[in-house]
Amino acid sequence: MSTTTVTVTGMTCGHCVSSVREEIGNIPGVTAVDVDLASGRVAIDSDTPIEQAALAQAVDEAGYELAG
Amino acid sequence: MSTTTVTVTGMTCGHCVSSVREEIGNIPGVTAVDVDLASGRVAIDSDTPIEQAALAQAVDEAGYELAG
Repeated sequence: MSTTTVTVTGMTCGHCVSSVREEIGNIPGVTAVDVDLASGRVAIDSDTPIEQAALAQAVDEAGYELAG
Repeated sequence: MSTTTVTVTGMTCGHCVSSVREEIGNIPGVTAVDVDLASGRVAIDSDTPIEQAALAQAVDEAGYELAG
């Protein structure tokens, strides 16, 4: 069990949150995704640690960017 | 053939635009919906004039509001 927290920039509404949640949720091993629209913080629970590249790709596919 | 132009408030991104376009597009007689995110202006082409109540309801169902 692993928890990863990142910040996603560019989300403006609930639809954006849903898109990010869905794309990250599709990463193998991810068991939960919690997105806070106001801060852009995304907490991801997974069976094993997630590769940063997979996370960045999922966020990109949703149409947003990882901060930092 | 009739064209109605209204302003919708609260749209922040392309997902919002899609929701508004879809809900208004479901009104019987509507043939085209053009949404400008920046200004909130929505132009609706229809076979016959659209009732304001139907338009307000569609925008409400999308999660936004008619201005004015």
